[in-house]
Amino acid sequence: APAIKINNTRALGGEVILHDRDTEDRDALGEAMERDRGLTLVRPFDDPQVIAGQGTAGLEIAVQGADMGISDAQVLVCCGGGGLTSGIATALAADAPKMRVCPVEPVGFDDTARSLVAGTHQTNAQTSGSICDAIVTPSPGKLTFPILKDLCPRGYAVTDEQALMAIKLAFQRLKIVLEPGGAVALAAALFLGDALSHDTVIAVASGGNIDDDMFRRALEVRL
Amino acid sequence: APAIKINNTRALGGEVILHDRDTEDRDALGEAMERDRGLTLVRPFDDPQVIAGQGTAGLEIAVQGADMGISDAQVLVCCGGGGLTSGIATALAADAPKMRVCPVEPVGFDDTARSLVAGTHQTNAQTSGSICDAIVTPSPGKLTFPILKDLCPRGYAVTDEQALMAIKLAFQRLKIVLEPGGAVALAAALFLGDALSHDTVIAVASGGNIDDDMFRRALEVRL
Repeated sequence: APAIKINNTRALGGEVILHDRDTEDRDALGEAMERDRGLTLVRPFDDPQVIAGQGTAGLEIAVQGADMGISDAQVLVCCGGGGLTSGIATALAADAPKMRVCPVEPVGFDDTARSLVAGTHQTNAQTSGSICDAIVTPSPGKLTFPILKDLCPRGYAVTDEQALMAIKLAFQRLKIVLEPGGAVALAAALFLGDALSHDTVIAVASGGNIDDDMFRRALEVRL
Repeated sequence: APAIKINNTRALGGEVILHDRDTEDRDALGEAMERDRGLTLVRPFDDPQVIAGQGTAGLEIAVQGADMGISDAQVLVCCGGGGLTSGIATALAADAPKMRVCPVEPVGFDDTARSLVAGTHQTNAQTSGSICDAIVTPSPGKLTFPILKDLCPRGYAVTDEQALMAIKLAFQRLKIVLEPGGAVALAAALFLGDALSHDTVIAVASGGNIDDDMFRRALEVRL
């Protein structure tokens, strides 16, 4: 995890328990803690309330799109386990049914895109190795994948370099701070134009937990 | 001017004419161009419509403050010629009359703060030398100063170092990109606490025209 995420969580009074992605299973660790310490586990994506909460971004897209006269568009969403993507897709299916929601993942960690093609849960060969740490997950969720399968026509994948370029452009033009995993949808909108299905594209920028060093690395990328 | 401001203006199709702050007067240059080329000069602050336009930020503060149950607060505004500050002060005098608006300037370029104390237009000893280039102006405006004098109890000044720290904290916590001149109000809120008059403080973050090098310099500042 980026140091800024760890430090900000601690500063807010949270206890941070680190684990090794390659050798340990965070779901099992969380469930053990829930059981042993009598806690309530809030899953990052595979929970109906989390999906519904993240889906409020879709409600905002529907309202803001309608204000701009946009009802027909491709909506690109940064995707790890699929909570944000399935939530947005569910909200838009109700409020802006002509919009098409597509997950965007890092190259090498495009389990959701491949699962959509296969129609069944696919996994990634690696468990780590992308700078887009926040959206590196082994496989789409149990609850999220049926929604994605129903509502998302396909997925996209971008390289770490493209994510860094999107961070730099967001800094220069949008004046917002994005982390790599939060910049992949914008990267797909900017760099995968030929593969997109609509002329109007909406990209969700999600997450700004980026360390100084990674941000400097993004600023050094050639555009 | 920062390279990013020049490049973005050119990219949008604008013609950029550079001048030397120390030896040339930009108002005179603008007026000469207006006359010689039959153009319309849009002044950066000393124009009733510009003041009114910038004052819409004050309307937003009044609405958002009311939504949060805040009617009584000190409002800190980044101040050059005083267009944004006088616009916000005018809007709040109407819509949230218990709010007190105070300009914030760079140390060494606090002409407005000193003019408020003196009751007459004061000027700065230097015309350049702060990294807060966007708000370095020789003196409060002809139209803006009477408004500021009427509505602003006092001004504040922050150092370049404090502006850089505010940029870094805005990056880490707010996930927004600020330029030095757009970060001075936030810097005053963060670092001049003992000199502030209210427990509730609203800081206007304005402007993100910052070059990569200056942003890197901000990230390197110790907090």
